[in-house]
Amino acid sequence: MDDLSKMPAFVDILDTTLRDGAQAEGISFSVNDKFAVLGALSDIGVKYVEAGNPGSNPKDREFFSTFIQRKNTSTTLCAFGSTKRKDKSCDEDAQIQSLLSAGTKTVVIFGKVWEFEVQEILRVTPDENITMIADTISYFVSRGIEVIFDAEHYFEAVQDNDGYARACLTAAQAAGASCVCLCDTNGATMPETVGRRVAEAVSWLDSDICKVGIHCHNDSGVAVSNTLAAVLAGAGHVQGTFNGIGERCGNTNLSTIIPNLQLKYGIRCIPEDRMPMLTTIARKIADIENVSLSGNAPFVGVSAFAHKAGMHVDAIKKNTKTFEHIPPESVGNSRRLLVSEIAGKAAILELIHKIRPDFDKASPEVEQVLGLVKQMEHDGYSFEGAEASQELLVCRELGLYKPFFDLERITVNSEHPHQGEMSASSFIKIHVDGKAEITAEEGDGPVNAMDKALRKAMEVFYPELKKTRLSDFKVRVLNHHATASRVRVLIETTDGIRTWRTVGVSTDIIAASYQALVDSLEYPLMLARLQST
Amino acid sequence: MDDLSKMPAFVDILDTTLRDGAQAEGISFSVNDKFAVLGALSDIGVKYVEAGNPGSNPKDREFFSTFIQRKNTSTTLCAFGSTKRKDKSCDEDAQIQSLLSAGTKTVVIFGKVWEFEVQEILRVTPDENITMIADTISYFVSRGIEVIFDAEHYFEAVQDNDGYARACLTAAQAAGASCVCLCDTNGATMPETVGRRVAEAVSWLDSDICKVGIHCHNDSGVAVSNTLAAVLAGAGHVQGTFNGIGERCGNTNLSTIIPNLQLKYGIRCIPEDRMPMLTTIARKIADIENVSLSGNAPFVGVSAFAHKAGMHVDAIKKNTKTFEHIPPESVGNSRRLLVSEIAGKAAILELIHKIRPDFDKASPEVEQVLGLVKQMEHDGYSFEGAEASQELLVCRELGLYKPFFDLERITVNSEHPHQGEMSASSFIKIHVDGKAEITAEEGDGPVNAMDKALRKAMEVFYPELKKTRLSDFKVRVLNHHATASRVRVLIETTDGIRTWRTVGVSTDIIAASYQALVDSLEYPLMLARLQST
Repeated sequence: MDDLSKMPAFVDILDTTLRDGAQAEGISFSVNDKFAVLGALSDIGVKYVEAGNPGSNPKDREFFSTFIQRKNTSTTLCAFGSTKRKDKSCDEDAQIQSLLSAGTKTVVIFGKVWEFEVQEILRVTPDENITMIADTISYFVSRGIEVIFDAEHYFEAVQDNDGYARACLTAAQAAGASCVCLCDTNGATMPETVGRRVAEAVSWLDSDICKVGIHCHNDSGVAVSNTLAAVLAGAGHVQGTFNGIGERCGNTNLSTIIPNLQLKYGIRCIPEDRMPMLTTIARKIADIENVSLSGNAPFVGVSAFAHKAGMHVDAIKKNTKTFEHIPPESVGNSRRLLVSEIAGKAAILELIHKIRPDFDKASPEVEQVLGLVKQMEHDGYSFEGAEASQELLVCRELGLYKPFFDLERITVNSEHPHQGEMSASSFIKIHVDGKAEITAEEGDGPVNAMDKALRKAMEVFYPELKKTRLSDFKVRVLNHHATASRVRVLIETTDGIRTWRTVGVSTDIIAASYQALVDSLEYPLMLARLQST
Repeated sequence: MDDLSKMPAFVDILDTTLRDGAQAEGISFSVNDKFAVLGALSDIGVKYVEAGNPGSNPKDREFFSTFIQRKNTSTTLCAFGSTKRKDKSCDEDAQIQSLLSAGTKTVVIFGKVWEFEVQEILRVTPDENITMIADTISYFVSRGIEVIFDAEHYFEAVQDNDGYARACLTAAQAAGASCVCLCDTNGATMPETVGRRVAEAVSWLDSDICKVGIHCHNDSGVAVSNTLAAVLAGAGHVQGTFNGIGERCGNTNLSTIIPNLQLKYGIRCIPEDRMPMLTTIARKIADIENVSLSGNAPFVGVSAFAHKAGMHVDAIKKNTKTFEHIPPESVGNSRRLLVSEIAGKAAILELIHKIRPDFDKASPEVEQVLGLVKQMEHDGYSFEGAEASQELLVCRELGLYKPFFDLERITVNSEHPHQGEMSASSFIKIHVDGKAEITAEEGDGPVNAMDKALRKAMEVFYPELKKTRLSDFKVRVLNHHATASRVRVLIETTDGIRTWRTVGVSTDIIAASYQALVDSLEYPLMLARLQST
């Protein structure tokens, strides 16, 4: 057996989405976004949330002051800052004072432990740096504030001068830090080295007083494994971000490491009953960040339990263990059998069973749907990736569908050069229950104009659609006969909690987009209708 | 020190993008796509390319037969299939015969080694399965064809009954397999287990005859680390896909594992001089797949070496190790800072030299072009696949360009439902040398209508354009803010002999297409003008 004797029974999770995650390219959180992320992390039971430095900008300051007023969460909010300056006492150091003013129960202090950096970047002596670490930590601890010490560039530091790195860690422990977190700041270190270095640090420190923590970056694509190696070597505190966002290649992905630790090793990270929230929380946070969660994200991606090859689909039906490493429900995800020619009848039947559990393989409706799907895939439709369109198709074939509106006419007009900000406009006239709605919209391009016009008209009759919005739009040219090629448009729509995908195919990108847009609006309406009957 | 004594000096890389990668949701390769991927993998020196089963569908059959005719690559193409059926000899087994007919020097045969699956899924006895493995391998080996044996679900198999799993591996070796590849089919296994199991298998087999290989899936987010653990334990053959595409959460990402093994451990995977092609090849393959390569992809993502503002330039000069785990150039990527370098600097200088050989790096015009390209690439242009647009840009900046027409107005109108065959129409008015041309066209969608109208108007003044036609049209959504996303349109045009590609970028697909169309018509006119002066 592998030596897992140092493995802890539980680890503390610290999410740094709002601090290190905010360093990722293209990420920016409003104060409301920060509260939404904090709420999601608190819902799933993350212990610590690191949320930036109140001294660094007014937005962070506003966040911390608002938080003090609310105090409505069981999760511990942490302010983040550095060790004090050499030439100031903590009382005189503005950065330390702003950290204190955040009023959090816990602060995370980062400091240098690499002798080279201490001398060349900080330009202080090694002893002065140790004093800075110790003084800063004691200052907060003496005021009843918990301190987590982040040792920057730890793995380079210990390689360069392990005596000095050790002296920094033990000084942090002596000053009262509850945790010393070893940071692989560059993401350079490989798992076997992380494991060895963490075991060393665990042996130097007293785990009853001070935990060893781990903070990894994904530059080598092994942040999750590095974190795992650290925990197996005795680390009791794990830092990362949901969905792995962060500077350069990102941080340890908490939506991957949490289920790995908890479901595969039995190491508790979050309360057991919260684990089925994992997929929802990961998607919710991605939504707040306005990033597309990768379909193939482990555990929480839409493709994570999607099966395509025909033989795999058969095997799955025989024994789920043959192609699924965990039950998808255990992390709140779900199995998807992708309907394509190779998958065949089993997958179609699965889909029909969602709506009509009484049908079996021999039912004529199953043959009918299968034939139609094959014909449509031949025409360029791709229903894997567009379950909502697929479910609507099944509803139509089973006679459960009735259109939610009648289109009289939609036109889209583009003009170049154009006057005003918008280059495209769309006119629409629809009928619902004998009432007509005529309206128009401008847009940033023809598809955007059409989307806005169609929604505007539909929302008059179905105000519940106001909660939904497009979250992704993809175009694929199917065959290459110049500009008369067939195009496939895939649209993803969300109401903030659920996400559904629809498809349209045509030689005309406007027509293909229109089909996908109509499905995207009719899908939630159809679901509501099915539930109410 | 860690025990790295079993680490090999080199490993064979097998890319399965065209087989396991094709199982990924939303991925579909045409025969031409397959050749493009094979070409890219061959350029970077991947040893084996696994490309599907010639017996499974006509597309794969066409690919293999065309390949035999070409034989123009140093990379070894492998056909993929399973062990023979129990009740047929290899000569009678249609699947074995189609594999043989592929005519490849190497085949990959997958087989079952998990006793549970042998009995429950295959429904043969354990001994019969071993005979099936041995007979199938011998059949190919006796015909001079190399066999790589993929042991499906190996890690569950060996856990369940290690004696039986071992018997399967040794039977494969005895039958002449050059490699036994241990497959973590479900992506369930964790790195320490993979390392231990590989070490065991290495001790059972004779490495002079039969290598141990590793094939991992990323369901637990540790495929790269599992592969690394396997190689450190003595595996000499690594399977994966560039960019990690594959079923569910994908396969081991070769663009991550190759630089990790080669640059961090000195284990050769591809010829050393090809390593700087890594980023280009990874991006090219993503482009063929029509997937957006994640910005934070290790080594090859656009953000992989992106550093936020505030980084001190002197600190960079002192020690790049403080913020970069490897030099970005070593994998053909580049550092991005506030004052960032442009990836295509050398290429642009070369382009300028075509037109003005007297200019050098210090010429102000060169700086000017570089600045513009940098700005345009930031805005989403990609000149890598659009040399004609790039050359036109250089001509404009060097003052050699004069427009070939003035656009007064172009409008495009789509109408649904529509009367007649065509859904879209376009009106255009242009001026050339004081003469106006007003015309219109209908089309199969807005871009087609615009293309036809623009050509019709231009051909009045430039009849030589009648020889040219669009031969390819691609659309890529750049960022995903629903239908207001920026789109990049790439157009390929041909006169039957030469082919050139142009690009346009806008939030408006009509505007982006218009830019690319104008460049596609002006490019041959510009070349003719340059040659005549």
